[in-house]
Amino acid sequence: MKKIINNPDTIVDEMIHGIVKASPDKLQILEDSTVVARKNFTEDKVCLLRRGGSGHGQDHAGDRGEGMLDCAVCGEVFTSPTPDQVLKAIEASNTGSGVFMVVKNYTGDVMNFEMAKDMAEMNDIKVDYIVVNDDVAVEDSLYTAGRRGVAGTVFFHKILGAMAEENKTLEEIKEKAEHLKKNVRSMGMATKPCVNPTSGEPSFELEDDEMEIGIGIHGEPGIRREALKPANEIAKELIDTVLEEYEEKQGNFALMVNGMGQTPEMELFIVNNYLQDYLKDKINITKTYVGNYMTSIDMAGFSVTLLRMDDTDKKYLEAKAETLKVVR
Amino acid sequence: MKKIINNPDTIVDEMIHGIVKASPDKLQILEDSTVVARKNFTEDKVCLLRRGGSGHGQDHAGDRGEGMLDCAVCGEVFTSPTPDQVLKAIEASNTGSGVFMVVKNYTGDVMNFEMAKDMAEMNDIKVDYIVVNDDVAVEDSLYTAGRRGVAGTVFFHKILGAMAEENKTLEEIKEKAEHLKKNVRSMGMATKPCVNPTSGEPSFELEDDEMEIGIGIHGEPGIRREALKPANEIAKELIDTVLEEYEEKQGNFALMVNGMGQTPEMELFIVNNYLQDYLKDKINITKTYVGNYMTSIDMAGFSVTLLRMDDTDKKYLEAKAETLKVVR
Repeated sequence: MKKIINNPDTIVDEMIHGIVKASPDKLQILEDSTVVARKNFTEDKVCLLRRGGSGHGQDHAGDRGEGMLDCAVCGEVFTSPTPDQVLKAIEASNTGSGVFMVVKNYTGDVMNFEMAKDMAEMNDIKVDYIVVNDDVAVEDSLYTAGRRGVAGTVFFHKILGAMAEENKTLEEIKEKAEHLKKNVRSMGMATKPCVNPTSGEPSFELEDDEMEIGIGIHGEPGIRREALKPANEIAKELIDTVLEEYEEKQGNFALMVNGMGQTPEMELFIVNNYLQDYLKDKINITKTYVGNYMTSIDMAGFSVTLLRMDDTDKKYLEAKAETLKVVR
Repeated sequence: MKKIINNPDTIVDEMIHGIVKASPDKLQILEDSTVVARKNFTEDKVCLLRRGGSGHGQDHAGDRGEGMLDCAVCGEVFTSPTPDQVLKAIEASNTGSGVFMVVKNYTGDVMNFEMAKDMAEMNDIKVDYIVVNDDVAVEDSLYTAGRRGVAGTVFFHKILGAMAEENKTLEEIKEKAEHLKKNVRSMGMATKPCVNPTSGEPSFELEDDEMEIGIGIHGEPGIRREALKPANEIAKELIDTVLEEYEEKQGNFALMVNGMGQTPEMELFIVNNYLQDYLKDKINITKTYVGNYMTSIDMAGFSVTLLRMDDTDKKYLEAKAETLKVVR
């Protein structure tokens, strides 16, 4: 394992402190926790939580801030945080209007979340949630019953975050989340596995000329291993599989070409170049995102995500958001 | 070579089309060129150009937009664009107030730029430029006489871009650029070399337990190869070398922890966690940037950059900018 770390046992702790120290005026770590939260919660605003294992890059670091997430409960790498950590985040971030959680479908996450929700409700805190399951590659997989939650989750953070900023109610946010869930679909592939720093081992093995189709974001192997093909052929297979999921192809779509961690942006733009032409007479793409949004540590590969948008989805997607990524 | 591409010969062409197709309302490719430019140039505003070889990720893709670059002249991977391409960009982007170019010190770039500048001036276009040389690792290197220009360049894009947006003159922008040049310093390291898709070969070879200190962003080897150390020790060596360059340590500093392409954000935040503590009693850091800002295709490693800021630098660094990275 070749990583720029100090100690595999303290990775998440050092990471979250590094995140907060990059924005000390905006972020804090809740006491005795691995919860990274906005420093000032806005009164009367529904709080938006993200929870799940660490290792997904911007999912923890970049999505927080005004108009995005209020709180991120960070588990160990690819490991669900415990219910007491989630409860701590819920209690700290509740300002009276309730807490909404975005959970990627991953069995450990869903189970621990349910427990934290029950505990919070005993303390009279309103909690609701959505389980994102946008990955069309497999129905069940290594760690998940049903479809996995992957890069499409970023659209939930952005759209629901913008709604919370507008003081929408917990019920309105839940309704939008259910709507998004029906309209977001993703599929990914890898040319190199990720190496979990805790184990030091690659999540699966690939030969120098092989790729894996249909991978998850926790090192889960995919549905098929085959010889690496040209970018356009891979992109076509992924988007065809995603497109098949939409009965209704009218309206506006957002496309995300997401890097899995170590994929150069150059390659992501090559994929986008193809997809925009290929999709031109199939669907109407009005928003495009290309970058490393939902990563799997240092996996190489990419995923494609579509979101079929209504007018309010588009409005919230375009709303102002303050994240940590931009030079400003 | 394991890359998600179609053809090594068309990488840059496909990449720039992929960039423009992600923001078709904002960007265009100038006819018969590899110049990616804003769609609408603002009258009476100095235009800001970036030029140089491709392979640096966000340097091409993310830094364009309102308050950042107006134009990027993209050469082949790690190869300077020809003078006629640069001239095309200058002619297209000049709205009468002149054109300012940010050039990373790299011998081919500087030479071709000088030629384009001379040609533009024969057509009565005001052109000025700065050669960024923030890399303190080496005085001369494989492709460059003098110090190389690396990640500190991003601060030039942001600060000068914000000034241009405020209709500052070419002379004022040049003056600020000279000021920045004296106050920006960087140094980097790699755990894995990049693989240039044109040659298909890694830029240098490292054993599984080795790292290279003092690398450039075009695959140039560094100053020393040695056993990989813990993140904190590496970070200390790099920042100590950078810090030594500042006679004056009063005032406010910006810190950038920049990933070289395939480094997970997790590792960059671990480095930031250390640096913020280590620097606390040495300098006053008031802005921090952590991410893959100036990459070298798929190299693994990171660089640290310091900018000693005056109040206007800080103001422009914090000014609104519209880039392609954020979900909005």
